[in-house]
Amino acid sequence: MTMPQYKLYYFNLRGWAEPARQLFKLAHVEFDDVRMENGTPEWEAFKPTTPFGQVPFLSIDDFKIPQSAAICRYLARKFGYAGKTAEEEAWADAIVDQFKDFVSPLRQFLMAQRAGDATEIERVQKEVFDPARRVFFKIINGILEKSTSGYLVGDGLTWADLVVADNLTTLEKLGVFNLSAEENQKLVAFREKVGAVPEIKEHNATRPEAVI
Amino acid sequence: MTMPQYKLYYFNLRGWAEPARQLFKLAHVEFDDVRMENGTPEWEAFKPTTPFGQVPFLSIDDFKIPQSAAICRYLARKFGYAGKTAEEEAWADAIVDQFKDFVSPLRQFLMAQRAGDATEIERVQKEVFDPARRVFFKIINGILEKSTSGYLVGDGLTWADLVVADNLTTLEKLGVFNLSAEENQKLVAFREKVGAVPEIKEHNATRPEAVI
Repeated sequence: MTMPQYKLYYFNLRGWAEPARQLFKLAHVEFDDVRMENGTPEWEAFKPTTPFGQVPFLSIDDFKIPQSAAICRYLARKFGYAGKTAEEEAWADAIVDQFKDFVSPLRQFLMAQRAGDATEIERVQKEVFDPARRVFFKIINGILEKSTSGYLVGDGLTWADLVVADNLTTLEKLGVFNLSAEENQKLVAFREKVGAVPEIKEHNATRPEAVI
Repeated sequence: MTMPQYKLYYFNLRGWAEPARQLFKLAHVEFDDVRMENGTPEWEAFKPTTPFGQVPFLSIDDFKIPQSAAICRYLARKFGYAGKTAEEEAWADAIVDQFKDFVSPLRQFLMAQRAGDATEIERVQKEVFDPARRVFFKIINGILEKSTSGYLVGDGLTWADLVVADNLTTLEKLGVFNLSAEENQKLVAFREKVGAVPEIKEHNATRPEAVI
C-alpha cells in the first residue's frame, strides 16, 4: 500500500489548521501545507472548488474532508491521538466541542479588534469574551485538577490537548491570557507539557510566525 | 455482559438532545430520558454536579459524557449510525460541525426573539441569521444534490441526518423554514425521508411537543 498524499489547505495562520499540522508532525507523516491569503483573487477563484466554500480542508489523494475538527479527529484516529477507548474519544470530542463554543465569542472579540473602535472592543471583551473565557478556563482547569497525567484525556497526548494548548498561545498573543496570574498556572504548566513533546517543540520553534 | 444503564440529562426540549434520543430509539436501546426545567432551584442545585456545568450530558453507569455532539457521536458509533468508513465518519462529523457553526447565529436570533424588541429581532434576522442560514442551506443542498441515497453521507442513515433533519423542524416552528418555497424542496424531501424511518416516525409522533 502506498502512503496517501495529504494536502492541508488553509490560510497563512495557525488557527484551526495548526493542530492538524502538529498531528502530521507527531506521526512523522509528510503532508503538503498549502497556505493561501484570504481576500486575494486566487482565494476567491479557489473558494468554489472547496467542499464547503471554506478552509481548512484536507485532501487525501482525491478525497476531501472539510471542517477543522472533523479533519483533526480523522487524523487523530488514524495516527493514534484520539484517545485509547470509545470513552476517551468521547471526552476528547467533548473538550473540543466546548472549545468550539468558546471560539464564537473569541471570534466576536477578534472582529471588534479588527474594526478598531475602542469602546466597542471594551464592550465585547467585557460582555461577551471575558465571561466565555471564564467558563472555558474553569472547565479546562477542572479537568487538569483531576488529571493524573497532566493531559486532558487519559494518560496520553490527544488532539484535544493540541487544540487547547495552541489556542492558549493565540490568547497570549492577543493579550488576554496572563501568564503570571496565579489562577492561570495550571494552564501554563499544561501548555509547557504539550510544547515539550519533541515533535511539537520542533514544529512550534520552526513554524511561520502568526498571531492567530 | 449486562447492558449499561443509560441516562440522558437535558431540559424539556428537543434541541441538542433529540438526535441522541432518536439514536436510542433506532437501536432499540432503553434509556432514561431525564428532563429538567431551566431556571428552577432543582436545576441550579444539580448544575454543579454535571461534568461541564451544563446539559445535555449522558451517563453510562457511572461514566459521564458532556457536550451534545460528543454524546451523539459516541452513541452513533456504538449503534452503527456514524458512517461505514473512517471517511464517511469524517463527513458526518464535518456536516455536524458545519451545523454547529450555524447554531451560533440561530441562538442569537432566538435570544433576540426572547428579548422581544421587534427592531432588534429584524436586525438580527437580516444581518446575522438569514446569511448564516443561506450558507448552511447551500451546503446541505449541495450535498443532497450529489447524494444518490437521499441521505447526507454514503448510502445509509447517519447521526448527521438526524441532527440536520430535526433542526429543520425547529426552523419550521420558528417560522424561518418555508416548506412551500421552491428552493427548499430538496430539504423538505430529505426531512420526509428521515422522518419515514419507522423508529423515527414513531418517536416523532409520540414525543413531547416543543418549539426548539
